[in-house]
Amino acid sequence: MITTTDKTSDGEPRGPLAGIRVLDTTGVVVGPVATLMLAEQGADVIKIEPPEGDLMRRLGGRPRKPGMSPKFLHFNRNKRSIVLDLKSDEGREVMARLVATADVFVSNMRPRALQSLGLTFAAMAAINPRIVHCTISGFAIGGPYAGVPAYDTIIQGLSGVAACHAEVLGEPRFAPFVLTDHLVGIVAAQAICAALLGRQRTGVGEAIEVPMFENAAAFVLSEHLDQRTFDPDGHMGDPRIMNPDARPLQTQDGYICVSANTDAQMRAFFDAIGRPELKDDPRFASVASRVVHVRAYFAIRAEAMRERTTAEWVEILRRHDVPAMPYHTLQSLLDDPQLRGSGVLTNEIQNNEDGQEESMLGLRHPNRYSNTGVPASRLAPRFGEHGEEILAELGFGADERRRLAGRGADAAE
Amino acid sequence: MITTTDKTSDGEPRGPLAGIRVLDTTGVVVGPVATLMLAEQGADVIKIEPPEGDLMRRLGGRPRKPGMSPKFLHFNRNKRSIVLDLKSDEGREVMARLVATADVFVSNMRPRALQSLGLTFAAMAAINPRIVHCTISGFAIGGPYAGVPAYDTIIQGLSGVAACHAEVLGEPRFAPFVLTDHLVGIVAAQAICAALLGRQRTGVGEAIEVPMFENAAAFVLSEHLDQRTFDPDGHMGDPRIMNPDARPLQTQDGYICVSANTDAQMRAFFDAIGRPELKDDPRFASVASRVVHVRAYFAIRAEAMRERTTAEWVEILRRHDVPAMPYHTLQSLLDDPQLRGSGVLTNEIQNNEDGQEESMLGLRHPNRYSNTGVPASRLAPRFGEHGEEILAELGFGADERRRLAGRGADAAE
Repeated sequence: MITTTDKTSDGEPRGPLAGIRVLDTTGVVVGPVATLMLAEQGADVIKIEPPEGDLMRRLGGRPRKPGMSPKFLHFNRNKRSIVLDLKSDEGREVMARLVATADVFVSNMRPRALQSLGLTFAAMAAINPRIVHCTISGFAIGGPYAGVPAYDTIIQGLSGVAACHAEVLGEPRFAPFVLTDHLVGIVAAQAICAALLGRQRTGVGEAIEVPMFENAAAFVLSEHLDQRTFDPDGHMGDPRIMNPDARPLQTQDGYICVSANTDAQMRAFFDAIGRPELKDDPRFASVASRVVHVRAYFAIRAEAMRERTTAEWVEILRRHDVPAMPYHTLQSLLDDPQLRGSGVLTNEIQNNEDGQEESMLGLRHPNRYSNTGVPASRLAPRFGEHGEEILAELGFGADERRRLAGRGADAAE
Repeated sequence: MITTTDKTSDGEPRGPLAGIRVLDTTGVVVGPVATLMLAEQGADVIKIEPPEGDLMRRLGGRPRKPGMSPKFLHFNRNKRSIVLDLKSDEGREVMARLVATADVFVSNMRPRALQSLGLTFAAMAAINPRIVHCTISGFAIGGPYAGVPAYDTIIQGLSGVAACHAEVLGEPRFAPFVLTDHLVGIVAAQAICAALLGRQRTGVGEAIEVPMFENAAAFVLSEHLDQRTFDPDGHMGDPRIMNPDARPLQTQDGYICVSANTDAQMRAFFDAIGRPELKDDPRFASVASRVVHVRAYFAIRAEAMRERTTAEWVEILRRHDVPAMPYHTLQSLLDDPQLRGSGVLTNEIQNNEDGQEESMLGLRHPNRYSNTGVPASRLAPRFGEHGEEILAELGFGADERRRLAGRGADAAE
């Protein structure tokens, strides 16, 4: 099993990104998802909040504690919060000090805003030539939509995510997630780490841009260009996915998910459902022919599954080496033994307004690192919770901290 | 604008991951998505295919050229292919030589298979202590489902992706993408880069595990735990997303996507639709109250959009600073000026069976790196296309290459 050897003096794992400092001026979802991954891997993520705070503190569902909405809690754990008014001289003074100490700067501001706040890559590189400056944009700079405000639903509608739902459902719908924000946030975390690796070779930082629309469209089209790849009149949309029976299949008492893609799995599946004669049916004989006859293939699956209970089918299919698992509702998912056993879903303690401890359900980093490990998890920060601490680390004395407090840099406590 | 200064001798950008070598034994989607990101950032990704080839060569839609399905082409560009029978002595001999030269090994084999093929982290670290060994698993090792075969649809059904569709549509459905494969592939690429950064500090590689189920469940629950975060009986599912009107909105001539989350956007939106009196409606006065009254808020949006054409609304809303964009079908997306202008969607040249050049539609890396840049794009490899070349690089002479060819290591040409 996996064991951690890279530990702090108190025996805690440090994480693969220990020693990396990230300045995060983003809010809502896309940026916070990116920096969450870095924070969970041991980076010191300083969440720089404007005087009004990250919108997600209020937008992310009813909070138990003011400014601590559920979604805010789940996207901002393991980060530190400082309040900076970057429009004020005091805020810029603190920011300049932070830039000198940082490896990464992340924002989703538009170029004009970065310019007016003095947060361009050029301005930061003058202070710290090794900084990696990541801009998460709606639309790539230089294109006709550059600078147009983008939110997840707008990107879903424009990038083909909603169109794929229309292919299946007959009308455009959004995915039931903040899908493109969430997806592009992970892409940004990957691009940032790639740029940090590039820095090891070149010795200098760089500006990187991660555009939401282009990433979302590439995500959709890589799966669904299909015959349009070759033929200007070719059909788009993977028929194995845009298929009425490509869904959890109804059983006598619920739903089951079955997957039988290889020839061996196909043969085992037809044996399992008592239709061995279909093994020799030319429509299903090869992967290529099953792709052509996917509707018939999936229809036979759907019909067969209705005949028994989910538990019966899982047992029978497992015995025949056909991949199959039951379907989880959101409720039943929470009781899943694998999920609970993995430690990804855990009972955390959060202090309520009166400082009393109340338990809450929290999430943890799902991946494992045998040597560097995953650092102990900390709850999402209160608004400005670490302002004092960070100002002190930057070498601001007590008098300076008093001067700064409430004038652009605020502990907000 | 972004300019590249880190170039090869022929003036090509090298990419942030130049100099990183990745051994990729994965197939289908999750692994190839992970190594695609690394390949596009300049890593030398060696795709090690079994004698039967990556299943996606046949599963990914009707090919123009045998073994080159559309989806295979889009998930495997910029990689090199060698055919190795890892069950044969010759295959292992070549693999050992490759491991000595590599930074990263990626597989989605189960522990038993890694063991029997001698591909465990321990075995590789004995040859190369700096190797980062990434296993993309269905379910985390140590849990009750460890080793159970997992495919995207099974993970979608089990992790709550299908359940979120049930919340909106009344019945479980899959997202119209290979969503969890695609998502976890990006997560794996990020975890690999994080581990490579950790290696810079510790001096040694490590084994990392990226489990699909746990990552997909964390993705779903971070958005939808909602009140269940605090209260064992609390409601799950973000009501702003699980909402009948959270979709592209019908206009007189099509669909539009509108987003108005801040107070300023709310006020501007009510002005834009000629309902200024609603600005003072207590149900909509704050972010928090709009979250509570989201159904009413979204219903007003939906009703208003029916009154004009998409173009009229986009112009009016843009004028009022309300984020809005038209909805794209898969067809209209291909003609989008931003997407075409970005170079993400491009006309490539592919040789057909007779060696004649035919144009095809290809995708490119969407992100930008001001210093290291994005290397020139290469088409996905033919089966075993680079076998000879790679064997020669490893120092196998002509005689040895002949001995190996067709006996575990095959140029397949």
